[in-house]
Amino acid sequence: MNSYSKLKKIFYEAALSTDIAGILHWDMSTMMPKNSRDNRAEQLAYLSKIRHQLISSQNVGDLINEAKLENLDTKDKSNLREMNREYIMSSSLPSNLVEKLSSASAKCEGVWEEARKESNFNIVLPHLEELVKLSKEESLILSQKLECSPYEALINKFEPQSKEKDIKNIFENLEKFLVPLIDQVIEKQKDESLISISNLMNSEKQKEIGLYLMKKIGFDFSRGRLDVSQHPFCGGAYQDIRITTRYNDKDPFSSLEGIMHETGHAMYELNLPHEWKYQPAGQSRGMAMHESQSLLIEMQITRSYAFKKFLSGVLKNNFDLTDNCWEIENIYKTGTRVNKSYIRVESDEVTYPLHIILRFNLEQKIFNDEIKIKDIPELWNHEYKRLFGKEVDVNTNGCLQDVHWYAGLFGYFPTYSLGALTAAQLASQLRVDVTNLDDQIEKGDFTDLLKWLKLNVHSKASLYSTDEILQQVTNSKLNVKYFEGYIKNRYL
Amino acid sequence: MNSYSKLKKIFYEAALSTDIAGILHWDMSTMMPKNSRDNRAEQLAYLSKIRHQLISSQNVGDLINEAKLENLDTKDKSNLREMNREYIMSSSLPSNLVEKLSSASAKCEGVWEEARKESNFNIVLPHLEELVKLSKEESLILSQKLECSPYEALINKFEPQSKEKDIKNIFENLEKFLVPLIDQVIEKQKDESLISISNLMNSEKQKEIGLYLMKKIGFDFSRGRLDVSQHPFCGGAYQDIRITTRYNDKDPFSSLEGIMHETGHAMYELNLPHEWKYQPAGQSRGMAMHESQSLLIEMQITRSYAFKKFLSGVLKNNFDLTDNCWEIENIYKTGTRVNKSYIRVESDEVTYPLHIILRFNLEQKIFNDEIKIKDIPELWNHEYKRLFGKEVDVNTNGCLQDVHWYAGLFGYFPTYSLGALTAAQLASQLRVDVTNLDDQIEKGDFTDLLKWLKLNVHSKASLYSTDEILQQVTNSKLNVKYFEGYIKNRYL
Repeated sequence: MNSYSKLKKIFYEAALSTDIAGILHWDMSTMMPKNSRDNRAEQLAYLSKIRHQLISSQNVGDLINEAKLENLDTKDKSNLREMNREYIMSSSLPSNLVEKLSSASAKCEGVWEEARKESNFNIVLPHLEELVKLSKEESLILSQKLECSPYEALINKFEPQSKEKDIKNIFENLEKFLVPLIDQVIEKQKDESLISISNLMNSEKQKEIGLYLMKKIGFDFSRGRLDVSQHPFCGGAYQDIRITTRYNDKDPFSSLEGIMHETGHAMYELNLPHEWKYQPAGQSRGMAMHESQSLLIEMQITRSYAFKKFLSGVLKNNFDLTDNCWEIENIYKTGTRVNKSYIRVESDEVTYPLHIILRFNLEQKIFNDEIKIKDIPELWNHEYKRLFGKEVDVNTNGCLQDVHWYAGLFGYFPTYSLGALTAAQLASQLRVDVTNLDDQIEKGDFTDLLKWLKLNVHSKASLYSTDEILQQVTNSKLNVKYFEGYIKNRYL
Repeated sequence: MNSYSKLKKIFYEAALSTDIAGILHWDMSTMMPKNSRDNRAEQLAYLSKIRHQLISSQNVGDLINEAKLENLDTKDKSNLREMNREYIMSSSLPSNLVEKLSSASAKCEGVWEEARKESNFNIVLPHLEELVKLSKEESLILSQKLECSPYEALINKFEPQSKEKDIKNIFENLEKFLVPLIDQVIEKQKDESLISISNLMNSEKQKEIGLYLMKKIGFDFSRGRLDVSQHPFCGGAYQDIRITTRYNDKDPFSSLEGIMHETGHAMYELNLPHEWKYQPAGQSRGMAMHESQSLLIEMQITRSYAFKKFLSGVLKNNFDLTDNCWEIENIYKTGTRVNKSYIRVESDEVTYPLHIILRFNLEQKIFNDEIKIKDIPELWNHEYKRLFGKEVDVNTNGCLQDVHWYAGLFGYFPTYSLGALTAAQLASQLRVDVTNLDDQIEKGDFTDLLKWLKLNVHSKASLYSTDEILQQVTNSKLNVKYFEGYIKNRYL
């Protein structure tokens, strides 16, 4: 067996341990009895340790160096490049730090659920302090290895090769463009009358419609599930994709569009190339690309006028929802209504980047040691005021709303807005390639859409870099102009 | 760190991998999308491999020998004894055989579900042949190590130190006692009129009542769940106990008594001593002892007249079931009705051992190479005719009814009836120690019952052998007379 084949075997086992952890994570958020939290943390820490031992050994480093001299084809070379990336990210960290991080994350996430229920940041504060302390250790070690700032090192865990400075720059431009535009849009929409849909569609109905739409998009229920969790996510294992949502009787579109969002993630995972199963090159590309797939479905497609035409018919004909609040115009306006929301996941696509900018700015400060964790609620509220021009009322509407930090995910947030920009850029090309897209969507036919996504993004997995994929598909690297054009076109 | 402490650390990790597999198994039977079967088999095989590598290394053997010379207290010595047992059982088998067995089991179990649905043994035949081939390899290796017959070696996986010859002897006596008695009981009951309860309690109601009874017994839902699976089981992980049932609208007591059965298993697991968490001595004793706990709850308690008094009140007062079919007499008679059923899990406690004897006799023949797997349906039906005096109609009522063989569990069945004998023996002492047990049960008070079980069985975990526990509690080794006395007392 040559060195590359030996590596493939090692990374196969690493992928299995990741998949097993994926199922345990899903179970933890959807099914697990509440007192199992500590034991589950031990299980996940153990799996992290196994994975870490597998891919961070000196042996793997040696095999990678040997494999570089072996005669590999282009795709195997890509796979080797991804192996090397995982090896560097993983071997830099000592085993006991990895275990501590995993264990502290699982515990903190559990306590966060309580803190959120009671809107009391202090309940989770000591756990978050511990987790940030460990994450800072991690970021310092990685930053030395990658020769970048500690915060940039964390971002690179989720979006390889991205630069803190570039993101800062993009976000400053986005902020400049969005802040005045938001007021303009709100002014434009203020006289539009909306018929309320509150309390007209209960959870059971929302679920039925969600499942119907998932099927229509092409989600294969023999390879996945839909469940309920406090914070919606797309997880599970290879070809066993589990998405979740939460239902709100007062706002049915919050769950329906959430389901479409996670379905976008899921279709990416389900369409990954089978021949690269369990290999690094067969994984989805960075988180920005992943988010582009969920946002493309949720924003570009689900909130389009064409989709609302289709949806209105479905609600009427398949679910007996004949009230005039379900008419096309009303659900289109409801879905494109711009509001200064407190909650990121419930916000519209226009204000959404401001939520991300808020978190990005705080994360920068945390990892530059400029602020104390106990001050987060106050700083959050201050930054929210600056961006949105209004006060946060309670912490569940502020720093307790998202699981990310409490699950140890620092540097993750920026990928959401990078994803939105990527989605806009891809969609622009999609509409060039599939000229009658809106006609198809009106009819509830998503075949060409999914074919296009599979061909241009999903099937490429990590065989190419994010930049390479964008270049191949759109002939351009990431450019904010596509997002600006799209937003102006839809909202002004 | 001394050798014993090193062993504790190794067995801690082994226990974690077992627990992780427990959650994956539960998921596979209750939640998993159907096309994930092959991937799940790979995950489980990988966990088996990890566990096997951990506890079967020469290093563990050396550490055990060193630890024997260390200054350990009595309980640590018990733990070391159990470590040694696991080491011997595990180190005898080569890694690749363990992986193959795990993978073949998961696959075969999946295909069995289809075969059962279609009542077509041939669908699963090649998978079962492969699995038996691998199990025979296993049994031969273990039999050399344990110096016993191949089949006895398999039984010892589930019930340490038991002898095939003793079991054969016990079962021959049971058969002699039961076959004429069954006809006597059926004759006695034939003029008793029963009011049918068919289709009077739907699945939803059965579930509500099941949950109510679980709570009454003391099942802690912050450390466990109830779900649905094709074959009911008690699984999960340490202090995260997941039981399952299946609902049958035509026979509500099938699920209710099934739930009580699994609750008996669950209470054992939930009451294991916390100070021995993740150590071999902290695990439940052999499968016979486990089954004694489920059967004690299901048979001795749930089918008693006192319990039916309590249940009848609950059905009337808490669930508005006022039809006269729910009167005490009728549900008691229904619960103690003796029938020559085809299905083991739906059979009464009097005929139950004959189902086990059938399987035991076939397993003996399989592992003595006396029969071919393809002949199992015919041989099953022949043996059924011999014991029950009637013909099996379809294979779902015959050799396709139980998951065990298709999940690679050979040598497991005998423990069910050993458990029934143990339950009768324990219950006999229980009624001496808790003199007003029936009064308490009538009132729905299970506190003393559970206290007694925790003190005498649950908290002892594997710190003592099955024989030692029986001796401590009842002053006698396993003796069939308790079961005979109990059955005659209730049924004649």
